[in-house]
Amino acid sequence: MKNVEIIAIGTEVLIGQTIDTNSAWIGEKLQMVGLNIFRKTTIVDTPELIIQTLQKAYEENDIIITTGGLGPTKDDITKTAIAKWLNKKLVYHEASVQHIQAFYKKRNREANELVLKMALILEGSEGFVNPVGASPGMMIPLPNHKVLFCLPGVPTEMKAIFQTYVMEILKALSQRYTEHFHLHLTGLPESQASFLLKDFENSLPEYMSIAYLPSYKLLKMRLDLNIEKDNEHAKQEFKEKCQEMSSILEDYIISYEQETLEEVVFRLLLEQNKTLGIAESCTGGNLIGSLVKLSGISKVLIGGIVAYSNSVKQKQLGVSHEILENYGAVSEHCALQMAKGVKNAIQSDIGIATTGIAGPDGGTDLKPVGTVCIALFTKNFEFVKTYHLGNNPREIFIERVIAIALENLRRYLLGKPL
Amino acid sequence: MKNVEIIAIGTEVLIGQTIDTNSAWIGEKLQMVGLNIFRKTTIVDTPELIIQTLQKAYEENDIIITTGGLGPTKDDITKTAIAKWLNKKLVYHEASVQHIQAFYKKRNREANELVLKMALILEGSEGFVNPVGASPGMMIPLPNHKVLFCLPGVPTEMKAIFQTYVMEILKALSQRYTEHFHLHLTGLPESQASFLLKDFENSLPEYMSIAYLPSYKLLKMRLDLNIEKDNEHAKQEFKEKCQEMSSILEDYIISYEQETLEEVVFRLLLEQNKTLGIAESCTGGNLIGSLVKLSGISKVLIGGIVAYSNSVKQKQLGVSHEILENYGAVSEHCALQMAKGVKNAIQSDIGIATTGIAGPDGGTDLKPVGTVCIALFTKNFEFVKTYHLGNNPREIFIERVIAIALENLRRYLLGKPL
Repeated sequence: MKNVEIIAIGTEVLIGQTIDTNSAWIGEKLQMVGLNIFRKTTIVDTPELIIQTLQKAYEENDIIITTGGLGPTKDDITKTAIAKWLNKKLVYHEASVQHIQAFYKKRNREANELVLKMALILEGSEGFVNPVGASPGMMIPLPNHKVLFCLPGVPTEMKAIFQTYVMEILKALSQRYTEHFHLHLTGLPESQASFLLKDFENSLPEYMSIAYLPSYKLLKMRLDLNIEKDNEHAKQEFKEKCQEMSSILEDYIISYEQETLEEVVFRLLLEQNKTLGIAESCTGGNLIGSLVKLSGISKVLIGGIVAYSNSVKQKQLGVSHEILENYGAVSEHCALQMAKGVKNAIQSDIGIATTGIAGPDGGTDLKPVGTVCIALFTKNFEFVKTYHLGNNPREIFIERVIAIALENLRRYLLGKPL
Repeated sequence: MKNVEIIAIGTEVLIGQTIDTNSAWIGEKLQMVGLNIFRKTTIVDTPELIIQTLQKAYEENDIIITTGGLGPTKDDITKTAIAKWLNKKLVYHEASVQHIQAFYKKRNREANELVLKMALILEGSEGFVNPVGASPGMMIPLPNHKVLFCLPGVPTEMKAIFQTYVMEILKALSQRYTEHFHLHLTGLPESQASFLLKDFENSLPEYMSIAYLPSYKLLKMRLDLNIEKDNEHAKQEFKEKCQEMSSILEDYIISYEQETLEEVVFRLLLEQNKTLGIAESCTGGNLIGSLVKLSGISKVLIGGIVAYSNSVKQKQLGVSHEILENYGAVSEHCALQMAKGVKNAIQSDIGIATTGIAGPDGGTDLKPVGTVCIALFTKNFEFVKTYHLGNNPREIFIERVIAIALENLRRYLLGKPL
């Protein structure tokens, strides 16, 4: 298997200004095409250190990927350091010059000399026009059939160039045959999944492996096959293992298609031609906001009411003074009326509602921080339940409430018990 | 200045299963005490690679910090690799043996032999009892007055040990004086900031440096001072440079206190005792959701209406059929009525509204994808403006609209021209 080293250049990650999300993302992609990640090095941007790190990476690996240091500022020195290392010149990448001029013109700014310097690439390298930003990426052939890719540090730009150009080239370089079986699950913590799969995992041959990718919303899992090309027996064996894994985890699977919980719910609403309205207190717009990130969602999502204060709960959602007085805003009575209220107000088929105590303040002995009531209301059906999520940072509490609300909606749409 | 290398041990980060948040956190702490982070290396857990990486780090640095590989499982081999490297024995850290026994007893589990192995530390090292977990950290003196810290990989445990024991030791080792001046800016791309600061940056002495931290919502900048202790001249000079930098960037500065745009707006609303209501179409709850992430926001935020469909715009926000017919949902007329409508519906002091075309579909020649109208309405004031943000991924479009809406609100609250 071919070895890869990732070199992240720039002080931002080292001095804690940025959390490096690029490496995990690239790491996953490399894993997917059957390449072996040998080491990841993050360094400050001094020419000497860049050159020394590149030289060592070259000696020990087949493929090097750098991120960062391609921007227009003084400390963007990746390209000049590489030019010095390889004793080559930087030349303008004509396609990127034009791209940058158009890119700036569209934003009513002028592409000055400093900005156009971003279009410089190493002579003899292949430039990759940046699909979402200005700086091009490049691929530089190295002696002994080795290769160096230079990518921007901004995650959206890095990812766009990686997916548009680099991924296919890496696939060809890897010379491995890989397959990946994806499962998205809810309601199953990583440790429990690992427990359920213990015997299965021990039964796997060395060319298959399981990856766990937990988040607050769902557990992503992957079974990987990584073999020499054209091993029909292993391909067949992989199919069987995928089925075995599915049946062990059956109860928790929400998708085999790498869909998010939001995407699954969107698809089901679309298939069933049903519309949705959302009333939110503790999630404060973040539940509807998570759905709005999906293109085309307006086909099923009518709107929502963020009832942060009690007056909005009363006036816009019809929560009575009695409910607020007798049970409080964080109560099943209130949640159910909010779901009903939003359904009626905006005339959707389904109304869902969240009301809870995100914290850090506002908890009581009876209703501690982390208490949340979630309701679902339709013409023929109603559901409400109280959950105790414990003490979490505010953002994590919100994420978990969104996940529970969407999972309830998913189960309702599938006719499963809630 | 003393050099530090961080070595993260374990495959999770390399193959994309975990995003490494430890490094940025440690990096920031090191920076703050005036230590120079030379390099960060992430490696798979093989003894040879660990030893080779430690040796190289020792040759080039004064301080080494490892994270990971201290747990009880088969692949936790950091300590045995270090013992082999330094040719020393592992001995039980008596305080940690007792701590682990108590730790497990409290959880009604027995501390078996495997678990107690976590209490092993290198002979001649100083053990740090883990305040929140089982594995102790340790500090190992190396030849030539160098030092190696070993910390767990679990972020909460790493941070607890770092803050309880390591931070003070590093401060003493650093022997540097540091100061940091923070600026948060909006409406200024990194490249333009760099252009404006070109002469200023060239005028800085070597013991001062600028850091740029761009995001879609704001540009964070920092001016750092890092000197020998007790250099009053440099401290004075730093003050002057901070002022100079402020006056160059004056028009774009939103905060000197590391506040986000949301936090600035929250503070201003609180200071002025004004309440806010939000009507959203294209941002679909994400604008109000970004404010709801702030604890205590209910003091100023009454609620919002997500008017994704035209029927909600009409019924809940009072947008007339004529406006929709003659100008469309993405129009200044509609945005202004939405802002007015939400203010009236939920009885807030200020109403703000967004309506636009997030894409990828829905654009026309007259109103291409990326068109957005933003409005602000109060008893005595109204504002509406159309922006053309171009073709962005949906999430970035939403982030940018949120930034513009909040920036307009900030300017309004400060009495600045919009």
